[in-house]
Amino acid sequence: MDNIQIIKGNFFDCSQDMELRARTGAYCVVKDGISEGIFDELPEKYAGAPVTDYGDMLIMPALVDLHTHAPQYTFHGMGMDLELLEWLNTYTFPEEARYRDLEYASQAYDIFVDALTRSGTGRAVIFGTIHTEATLLLMEKLEKSGLVTYVGKVNMDRNSPDNYREETAQSLRETERFVEEALSFRSTFPILTPRFIPTCSDELMRGLSAIQKRTGLPAQSHLSENRSEIEWVKELVPDAAFYGDAYDIFGLFGGECRTVMAHCVSSGKEEIERMAQKGVFVAHCPNSNTNISSGIAPVRKLLDAGIRVGLGSDVAGGHSLSLFDEMVSAVQVSNLRWRCIDQNDRQLSMTEVFYMATRGGGEFFGKVGSFDRGYEFDALVVDDCGLAGMIKPDPAHRFLRSLYLSHECLLAAKYVKGNKIL
Amino acid sequence: MDNIQIIKGNFFDCSQDMELRARTGAYCVVKDGISEGIFDELPEKYAGAPVTDYGDMLIMPALVDLHTHAPQYTFHGMGMDLELLEWLNTYTFPEEARYRDLEYASQAYDIFVDALTRSGTGRAVIFGTIHTEATLLLMEKLEKSGLVTYVGKVNMDRNSPDNYREETAQSLRETERFVEEALSFRSTFPILTPRFIPTCSDELMRGLSAIQKRTGLPAQSHLSENRSEIEWVKELVPDAAFYGDAYDIFGLFGGECRTVMAHCVSSGKEEIERMAQKGVFVAHCPNSNTNISSGIAPVRKLLDAGIRVGLGSDVAGGHSLSLFDEMVSAVQVSNLRWRCIDQNDRQLSMTEVFYMATRGGGEFFGKVGSFDRGYEFDALVVDDCGLAGMIKPDPAHRFLRSLYLSHECLLAAKYVKGNKIL
Repeated sequence: MDNIQIIKGNFFDCSQDMELRARTGAYCVVKDGISEGIFDELPEKYAGAPVTDYGDMLIMPALVDLHTHAPQYTFHGMGMDLELLEWLNTYTFPEEARYRDLEYASQAYDIFVDALTRSGTGRAVIFGTIHTEATLLLMEKLEKSGLVTYVGKVNMDRNSPDNYREETAQSLRETERFVEEALSFRSTFPILTPRFIPTCSDELMRGLSAIQKRTGLPAQSHLSENRSEIEWVKELVPDAAFYGDAYDIFGLFGGECRTVMAHCVSSGKEEIERMAQKGVFVAHCPNSNTNISSGIAPVRKLLDAGIRVGLGSDVAGGHSLSLFDEMVSAVQVSNLRWRCIDQNDRQLSMTEVFYMATRGGGEFFGKVGSFDRGYEFDALVVDDCGLAGMIKPDPAHRFLRSLYLSHECLLAAKYVKGNKIL
Repeated sequence: MDNIQIIKGNFFDCSQDMELRARTGAYCVVKDGISEGIFDELPEKYAGAPVTDYGDMLIMPALVDLHTHAPQYTFHGMGMDLELLEWLNTYTFPEEARYRDLEYASQAYDIFVDALTRSGTGRAVIFGTIHTEATLLLMEKLEKSGLVTYVGKVNMDRNSPDNYREETAQSLRETERFVEEALSFRSTFPILTPRFIPTCSDELMRGLSAIQKRTGLPAQSHLSENRSEIEWVKELVPDAAFYGDAYDIFGLFGGECRTVMAHCVSSGKEEIERMAQKGVFVAHCPNSNTNISSGIAPVRKLLDAGIRVGLGSDVAGGHSLSLFDEMVSAVQVSNLRWRCIDQNDRQLSMTEVFYMATRGGGEFFGKVGSFDRGYEFDALVVDDCGLAGMIKPDPAHRFLRSLYLSHECLLAAKYVKGNKIL
């Protein structure tokens, strides 16, 4: 039974229909990194297997970050005084251009990977820069961390500074080289990454679609984040019925290949229907959308349409890598959306948001985000003894409170695919 | 020179006109707990005085919490699924009723005072419960902590549960007894605290006003937080032109006595004008207003009207005692207000919000919230070494970043009135 381990403690996850499930003092049997399920009593056949007992601590699926930018971690928490397009030109593009220098990239990515490892995130979908070498170097470091990630070499061949733009043919060639070299990793996967319509010519988009058809790789991009951006896309792709249609026209909007679009703050009815129809995932990034004044995404409408929604930290539009912070923000902005924008969009509960941060985004990685039998065993062990006080809440309330007050708790351990990486 | 101490480090505070001021590698001379000002070179006459050198750390005024509820700390981070009036009846009143038991109160207030002491808050304006003894006990504990606070025994004689309501005469008698006994403290001051119009009869309000006229004590209450509450106040005080006028009718709305009103989410033009005219302080509580779906206060309009605005954690409507969290939230909701509600209400910058958390609220306490000569020396020493990375921002950006990312920094020391209390 070498490949079996038993984890004991108080387990919390969500069912497929977004109900919170609490199993206290229970056992999770993990075989070859896969959950065999949760048991109130340990079945006799596992009697000899090693047990790690986390006592009265809280155990939840490790969190899934569906959207973040590794090279922007250097300035997280800075430059929050502009809207998207100005923000990109003032802070983001000049910083990302520095990753051409591999020594800079290596030092910066060490810091990013260390921070991501120490965070509550077990899996992430990540933007690199346009630089193939630097992005492969990021993947090497992530591979060693034990995290599971998708990483994209970014494509941009227009509307970008001279020192941070590719020629179209070169962008496509480098993408093919990137994909080929990246296939050597075991837990770090390549993903096609056209930055967004404004920085990608029609020809580049068609070329990326051809690569996707040949390789079956997933794709990530940005969608309907900011009003000026949306107006600009209308000018750039006049045939598109709406922003998302501009991706669809070029064959890069879900369908057979998994696709995640970040933001969708201003997605209208047609765009929502198309995303549902094409199976597009949405990365909801409330801190970023709030910091750079984009607005509040209509998450209730997305969920009602059957769209799979996960959370994204979107560093450095988001100021924190913590998906706990993102969960609190997701509940909060849903309250404000209901109160100030549309009383039809019922608020999100913390349980629904916890679902998004686990199963919702986890589905992008396969069977990830719960302790159900057959799911990969990703877990956080949280010590909430800092919250011990006068009130003894029932397990569900105790758990939900730890999500609100993560900064008053300790992350005691983290598992990804059954491996303890923290 | 026994009463002189010198603090060395990088100082950040705001000028009266809300500009951020950075003085790196400078000296603050503190005499009898009062700042003599900041000096780039130490004046010769202080050559013999003891110097505490905080090296490259960041030193800022300790933060001022203009509105929080001590008895609600027991359930901070819980019960965020209701709006105000339901939330009061479901979570708040039953919990506050428990403070009739002095043993419970003593244990709970120990936890609260310890948490407040460990936080970035140096001064606070605090609601207790209706219980005189428990509130005096809270004040005893605060007095020992070194913090400077105003604390109110709450008044409520209607629309409250049977086990958490006073008779009118008894409420007034107990308030007088509370005030008399509380005057023995040196850094912990009584403040009149009618909970809000719905729980205070006309007779109670008139009685409290009479006490205020006799004692000159300041007052605190809630104003225009939630829509149902506002409708209710219209029914309860039909003569009032607007919610704030209901306080004014009874003589409890600023003027000669300092008064702070929490929330003001739905304050209209008339109410804002009246507050400006009467010198009422506003405690802006963005996390609370967001958590319990109240909305976004028109802070830009309040500032433009010349109203003095500070920040309030409003635990447990707010989930955290941290005013750093509150600062981030204040900037964020101002972005959303501008984007989603009123493009005339320009966003608040982090510098403006930092002003509110220091000088803005500090004015309620006198000369508090800056390092200007003559101001009481309240300070936080923040170690931001966790943010060291690839980018070396200038001092102002480095400082503002530490406010966004307080959870990645350490609070190395805290001074109130020149005393090191942490």
